[in-house]
Amino acid sequence: MSLPFIKLTRGVPPVESFPTAQLSECATSVLEKWGDVVLQYAPARGFEPLRAWIAGQAGVAADRVIIGQGSLILQDFFVRYLLRPGDIVYVEMPSYDRTLTIIRRAGGKLVGFTLGDDGPDVDAIEARLRGGERPKAFYIIPDFQNPSGTVLALEKRQRLARLAQEYGFYIIEDVPYRELRYRGEEFPTLFEFAPDRVLQMSSFSKLVSPGLRVGYVIAPESLAGPLAKTAEDTYINASYLNQAIIYEFIDRGWLEPNLAALRELYEPRLDATLGALDQHFSDIATWWKPDGGFFVGVNLNAPVDTDELLARAAAANLALTDGRGFYPDRDVEGFVRLPFCALTPEEIQSGVARLADVLHGMR
Amino acid sequence: MSLPFIKLTRGVPPVESFPTAQLSECATSVLEKWGDVVLQYAPARGFEPLRAWIAGQAGVAADRVIIGQGSLILQDFFVRYLLRPGDIVYVEMPSYDRTLTIIRRAGGKLVGFTLGDDGPDVDAIEARLRGGERPKAFYIIPDFQNPSGTVLALEKRQRLARLAQEYGFYIIEDVPYRELRYRGEEFPTLFEFAPDRVLQMSSFSKLVSPGLRVGYVIAPESLAGPLAKTAEDTYINASYLNQAIIYEFIDRGWLEPNLAALRELYEPRLDATLGALDQHFSDIATWWKPDGGFFVGVNLNAPVDTDELLARAAAANLALTDGRGFYPDRDVEGFVRLPFCALTPEEIQSGVARLADVLHGMR
Repeated sequence: MSLPFIKLTRGVPPVESFPTAQLSECATSVLEKWGDVVLQYAPARGFEPLRAWIAGQAGVAADRVIIGQGSLILQDFFVRYLLRPGDIVYVEMPSYDRTLTIIRRAGGKLVGFTLGDDGPDVDAIEARLRGGERPKAFYIIPDFQNPSGTVLALEKRQRLARLAQEYGFYIIEDVPYRELRYRGEEFPTLFEFAPDRVLQMSSFSKLVSPGLRVGYVIAPESLAGPLAKTAEDTYINASYLNQAIIYEFIDRGWLEPNLAALRELYEPRLDATLGALDQHFSDIATWWKPDGGFFVGVNLNAPVDTDELLARAAAANLALTDGRGFYPDRDVEGFVRLPFCALTPEEIQSGVARLADVLHGMR
Repeated sequence: MSLPFIKLTRGVPPVESFPTAQLSECATSVLEKWGDVVLQYAPARGFEPLRAWIAGQAGVAADRVIIGQGSLILQDFFVRYLLRPGDIVYVEMPSYDRTLTIIRRAGGKLVGFTLGDDGPDVDAIEARLRGGERPKAFYIIPDFQNPSGTVLALEKRQRLARLAQEYGFYIIEDVPYRELRYRGEEFPTLFEFAPDRVLQMSSFSKLVSPGLRVGYVIAPESLAGPLAKTAEDTYINASYLNQAIIYEFIDRGWLEPNLAALRELYEPRLDATLGALDQHFSDIATWWKPDGGFFVGVNLNAPVDTDELLARAAAANLALTDGRGFYPDRDVEGFVRLPFCALTPEEIQSGVARLADVLHGMR
């Protein structure tokens, strides 16, 4: 009898979290009210009412907000605009694999800084800057980082913002998980400390639905124009239908209750993950202990051959993401990302136990 | 009393052409049937049923079809994948300004071939190839070309397909207007003559709605994989909601009647344009006489200062597109693109007459 297949690769919201009926109502309403606008070509910056709402939340002028087809492509626009081949970009280590690809593809040279419990080593960053290195940007996910779950400490936020101003680099602050805090207190964003050096990016993928592909950036004034031009030159505009559906969802007062429902759905899954790790991983790994987000990052005490780990996990009907992909040089063996939102507590308990068995079998 | 403002810049479908109520029905149905699929992350190649339908129309395997967020960004993916700085790309002269930008941005060197009545000068193309020039690609809009309205002759299609095979370059065949033929017989596509060298691109922007941003490419087998990978690395996937709405629209049998309605709406607008040109432009210009599409391209008999023309037109409450943007070196003065689909016959008659007055005033 084979074990049920468990995908520990699923860094996505579960389908049961989608507010499908509400989104259907929103679509009908949007086409009735704004059909002529959302079905036509339109300015690349995005659907005005949603831009105004995002700007209002952030306390900035609407012309600093650009809505795109997800936020990843907005990162692509920015690095293509900013980087010349060989330009240095700082990243956390580990970091979001898709962004590392985007930066590499634009010719950027990645320099990684190891994550501690409360974010990257800012002393090491400052030392490199004092040593004369001049990065163009620092890509960072300060809240419930992907893939580790880390939250950046308040003092480190202040220091990084100051360093960005002092040494003239941009911070790309990616905050898609920030609203998914299940307990504890949030810190101010990097954007709040250095609004002229920070591009804050987020999306509605984790808050409403990824399939609508609605992301955005709040950019310094000098960059909003070039970013909008790059967007227009690339895809004319992202679909306003999707953006207007999100706006209507917010305007009807459905976002906050949706977030509350997500937090209620996900917190037990986080707890199941942390509990299962305590039970099965104490002797073989350490891990971050986040209060929110989608992921728990696990560092194995001893390096393993990742190819062998993936193969053995697959043989045990466990799908694992290749942990090396989260590192700039793809050279770190022994990191495992556990996404927990799309799995039931039972699947998590069973998957983590089975993964521990696999790892014990490799010793 | 000021003259009513007329936008001769509007290369877009008129809002009265949008089948809004039908699209709303489709959206409701899609979210009911496929909510879990269209609201989730998904493979970059696009919504399966629509890919299968497109493949069926073209008589190719579905894995050669990639649906994107409009077709322009698929061009961007292709040229970013294909071109190294300085690589040569052949284009018609004039050609679609946004694609010229895409190619330039990817480092491509544009070489233009002047359009005659029935497409570019293939003798000139062949001479350059025989002379040793090796372009990576030829971007061409063979049916109701933007901005001229030209249709590529059958014999030229055959020759270009043969040249692509002989000299090993790709043809990017952009056919967004092909279905908008108001009279006369269509020719086979370039894709039909050389399916292994032609990337055929099109979209539903002109056939249903631009705001849905659904375009596609039918690519040679060897390119489909790399293109899908580039798409995934850039935006994960384009919104399946929009793609599924288009599929549902087709599946309900609404596309053909919609095309018939568009042809009925646009043909009198084309006729009004050609009639007004006959009446007012015979002594100052020549122009293409298309049987379909969105545009009539006008070549003034004597070059004009385009900046002055745009300024004088604006003073007469006429918005004109800068004709230089359609040329690789932006150095041709005296080309005017007249888009007719989004203007009423009365606006066209009045706009063309007024433009003739402006031009007479410049002699």
